[in-house]
Amino acid sequence: MLESLRRWLIGPPLPTERLKHERLGRTQALAVLSSDALSSVAYATEEILLVLAAAGTGAFHLSWPISISISVLLIIVASSYYQTVHAYPQGGGAYLVTKDNLGAVPSLVAGAALLIDYVLTVAVSTSAGIAAITSAFPVLYPWRVLLAVAIVAFITTVNLRGVRESGRIFAVPTYFFIATMFLLIGMGLARWFFFGSPSAGAMTTWGAQAKNVGIFLLLRAFASGCTALTGVEAISDGVPIFKEPEADNAGKTLLTMVTLLVSMFLGITWLANHYHVVPGGERTVLAQLALQIFGHNVLFFLVQAGTALILFLAANTSFSDFPRLSMWMAIDRYMPRQMANLGDRLVYSNGIITLGTLASLLIIAFGASTHALIPLYAVGVFISFTLSQSSMVLRWYRKRGEVRGWYYRAFFNGLGAIATGIVLLIIASMKFIHGAWIVLLLIPIFVKLFLDIHAHYISLASQLSMKKELPPPVRNHTVVLPVSGLHRGVVKALHYAKELKGDLHVVMVDIDRASTEKQLERWQKWFPDLQIEVIPSPYRSVVDPLVEYIDKFVKEEGDFVTIVMPEFVPAKWWHHLLHNETAWALKVRLLFTKPDWRKRYRIITDVPFYLKK
Amino acid sequence: MLESLRRWLIGPPLPTERLKHERLGRTQALAVLSSDALSSVAYATEEILLVLAAAGTGAFHLSWPISISISVLLIIVASSYYQTVHAYPQGGGAYLVTKDNLGAVPSLVAGAALLIDYVLTVAVSTSAGIAAITSAFPVLYPWRVLLAVAIVAFITTVNLRGVRESGRIFAVPTYFFIATMFLLIGMGLARWFFFGSPSAGAMTTWGAQAKNVGIFLLLRAFASGCTALTGVEAISDGVPIFKEPEADNAGKTLLTMVTLLVSMFLGITWLANHYHVVPGGERTVLAQLALQIFGHNVLFFLVQAGTALILFLAANTSFSDFPRLSMWMAIDRYMPRQMANLGDRLVYSNGIITLGTLASLLIIAFGASTHALIPLYAVGVFISFTLSQSSMVLRWYRKRGEVRGWYYRAFFNGLGAIATGIVLLIIASMKFIHGAWIVLLLIPIFVKLFLDIHAHYISLASQLSMKKELPPPVRNHTVVLPVSGLHRGVVKALHYAKELKGDLHVVMVDIDRASTEKQLERWQKWFPDLQIEVIPSPYRSVVDPLVEYIDKFVKEEGDFVTIVMPEFVPAKWWHHLLHNETAWALKVRLLFTKPDWRKRYRIITDVPFYLKK
Repeated sequence: MLESLRRWLIGPPLPTERLKHERLGRTQALAVLSSDALSSVAYATEEILLVLAAAGTGAFHLSWPISISISVLLIIVASSYYQTVHAYPQGGGAYLVTKDNLGAVPSLVAGAALLIDYVLTVAVSTSAGIAAITSAFPVLYPWRVLLAVAIVAFITTVNLRGVRESGRIFAVPTYFFIATMFLLIGMGLARWFFFGSPSAGAMTTWGAQAKNVGIFLLLRAFASGCTALTGVEAISDGVPIFKEPEADNAGKTLLTMVTLLVSMFLGITWLANHYHVVPGGERTVLAQLALQIFGHNVLFFLVQAGTALILFLAANTSFSDFPRLSMWMAIDRYMPRQMANLGDRLVYSNGIITLGTLASLLIIAFGASTHALIPLYAVGVFISFTLSQSSMVLRWYRKRGEVRGWYYRAFFNGLGAIATGIVLLIIASMKFIHGAWIVLLLIPIFVKLFLDIHAHYISLASQLSMKKELPPPVRNHTVVLPVSGLHRGVVKALHYAKELKGDLHVVMVDIDRASTEKQLERWQKWFPDLQIEVIPSPYRSVVDPLVEYIDKFVKEEGDFVTIVMPEFVPAKWWHHLLHNETAWALKVRLLFTKPDWRKRYRIITDVPFYLKK
Repeated sequence: MLESLRRWLIGPPLPTERLKHERLGRTQALAVLSSDALSSVAYATEEILLVLAAAGTGAFHLSWPISISISVLLIIVASSYYQTVHAYPQGGGAYLVTKDNLGAVPSLVAGAALLIDYVLTVAVSTSAGIAAITSAFPVLYPWRVLLAVAIVAFITTVNLRGVRESGRIFAVPTYFFIATMFLLIGMGLARWFFFGSPSAGAMTTWGAQAKNVGIFLLLRAFASGCTALTGVEAISDGVPIFKEPEADNAGKTLLTMVTLLVSMFLGITWLANHYHVVPGGERTVLAQLALQIFGHNVLFFLVQAGTALILFLAANTSFSDFPRLSMWMAIDRYMPRQMANLGDRLVYSNGIITLGTLASLLIIAFGASTHALIPLYAVGVFISFTLSQSSMVLRWYRKRGEVRGWYYRAFFNGLGAIATGIVLLIIASMKFIHGAWIVLLLIPIFVKLFLDIHAHYISLASQLSMKKELPPPVRNHTVVLPVSGLHRGVVKALHYAKELKGDLHVVMVDIDRASTEKQLERWQKWFPDLQIEVIPSPYRSVVDPLVEYIDKFVKEEGDFVTIVMPEFVPAKWWHHLLHNETAWALKVRLLFTKPDWRKRYRIITDVPFYLKK
């Protein structure tokens, strides 16, 4: 039944031969790879305004210079990644680039930061998408957590089905969103310049002068706005999906994406400044703008729909990135090897399920509030930016003999590394108490965990190595069949025990003298040739005397003892509670006994006896 | 470590020969068997007053006639049990007596009622004992739930240690309690008669006239007071612990107990009436009386201590009764057979643990409030009274030829049965919405469960019966060793697989062509003579193709297949998460496959390979 539900949800298994790669042109690749970056304009301006609100509406004007500096940073980071695209045409994610240039531990830091970042992308984008929907239909606002978790569950299921990153399907929401944004910005500019400022009635009055704006507030607002940079690295990770020439196409697409991103981000901030939007409350800044510029009509709802769709698409991209990175880290033995198992729908199901679960928990814990999640978000992103760009600098220096003009390449990556490094410090300190500490605490914990996992696999490989002395062949083999009453189940076990080449010992633990003698007599009647040894048990334990008896036969390495146990398999699960389960107790006991080389030579074989009811 | 903690708590195992019975004289037996009954005077009067409070303080005077009628009922029930004592010198609990005379289903009703009653005895007595303590030290009042659970945990541990019902130890608190009660009653009477009514200042004024006291309120108050009868049956259950002549001694002890109980109960109600005690609040009625009569001095604290001790002792008696009844019902196959396992300290540990757990849950659910628990309490007791007395009537009628004067014996039991039956109806209806419905709902559920368990054991016995056709001997035996990579663990498994007499098939599931070929080559190099069969797996599942392969070998009943699986046993529990656990997946899969006769012939043998770190 569970199996049918699973099949209905994720479909029948797919054969391995269906595993092919689709190559995309620039237009489609932009749609697939840029949703995370472009969608951040849905909340970046709002996050800046929310911080500035602490100094009153008069401070809101400062969002414009802050947005300009963030755009400059964006251009620096993008030109830095432009070089990564050309240097790593096989895909240059921060984990791989860092591993390649800085070594294991820094790459694990980048890996931990990225994995956390992917989980947060899902949580933040889904929450922001739900905010777009509840801005259009405020009646849904109380259900936002439930809705967000439902969306994550839906995206998880779709990804478990293994729908490939289809350029055509993804193009629709991405270009639809871009179109609505430019329509909004165009209409907003037009209204402002042709009709003058909106009527005072429709508009909140902002204070004329900012008062008490300290440097800390500015830095905090800047740190919040830096979420606009999330997702910029996606194209450099995904170079292999481009049509040839991959690097060239990817580079051009990156430039297009950054141009779109900067113009939309600046456009929205400009509008927010001139239409005097006040953040907070049930409607997002974007929704308030759309409402003022378009009015409460179909265009307003189209903007909200476009925003929600691209945000869910952004969440969806993490469902390729997280499992892929987990797979790489599992292949490098830093993650459980199950992360590299290709599921029956040709996707890394374990990674997808892990991501969906963690993101849902995060959404529940933070009440699907984008604003509450943002402080955690940018830290991880900027850690991976800084590590990845620093790696590139080192790479150019090492290749200084081979690469023409290595110094100006190193300069651009160095500029990126320094800029993102400084921003990382700003974000980490400004957002520390608001949640960045969680990420800064988790990263070393994860790195430690990755290293422990690695150590385990290395030690496992050495323990299993064929280069060591091989396990001894079987020297003496003893088969022990513990019996009590005589019944059909134990008869089957007796038949089976004779199928083993070792010496058979049928034993009875004597818990109650009278009953033991009665049982022995019965056995005698049915199996007159069978020799049954009686093991005394003054303390009424079945397990202890048996273990002692068994271990007598293991004198040297290679002396195997097989314990054959008849085991009832009840027809109903609760019937398990009605049996003494001596077999189970014996297994637990043998597993948890003190370290002793003897336990390496005990084999327990259950001979199942299936009950019909 | 867990084992050491367990040993420290409950002590080393005891040999079976230590299982002996201590016989008690009347004085000690009274102490052992009457704590449940006598301790109920600690709360019975209070429960009556709490109901009457609904009609104002003027109604409190009615507690006196109500107590008189309860005392009459008590004498009727006691004389009825006096006959049970003589008719069942081997111990006449309601379950056994009912089974003997009315048959299985009524005895299960009695059994269910008694088991619920024992759990409630622990919960009620412990809560009331804690109330006595918090009356002395009101500062502990907020901690009452925690304290009550701690006391239950302590009593559970003591019983798991298997301290025998020692008459000497039990005599101390019982006689101490009786002494303090009679001191309280004596002093109270003396003060009243010699010094007249206490000064108005020390005493609350009760209304002179009861107003609006309906028959329902009277019946509810009566029903509440009937908790005074709980525990009266204990002596009839425990006849075998008396010195010879058992029945005679038990009968006399029963009379003594009832005399003590009636006088203490009436005495306390009389005092409450004359000292105008108002129930509710942080101090119990008994504590308020002690405070008025003795003042806030050592005597007051002694009364509280005596009350608490006998109440805990009453809770303790359930820890003999519940496991004993469970054991009888397990022997009759109405309860899981584990209930009849004598633990290593010669006690029925499973019953003790079950009782302790259930009582603790009840205390937590009802906030350690005696008053909230009481409505559940008396229903079960009176169900078992009625069934037990009715059984006795039937018994006398059946033995009318043998027993002299059977009709007057039947008359006394019949009177008891009718009286308790009527009271049962009163309690069930008056207390229905206050909690009696829970018990009335649980009893049929338990009876159904007992019958299901019985049906399972009967069916098990028939399925295991040697009278049926015996399982077929082994016809063909195939041994399948699934391998993938070559390592020391699988070499050990290969050694072991050769110890089975069946035909060995070493198989490799081909998930990835390239890797399969590499592995085969490696095997070839190490074991050139070994034939490895490759099983294709287009959908990358290891389990499905294996199951299909295995089942090919089972063509007829008796065709056994043994699957030998190398299994890593990691050194740390979390390392389990780092392995693919194919063996585990295969086991689960084989267990949950559709009903198929083939699965009866699959045996899975793990060959453990212990990892050192």
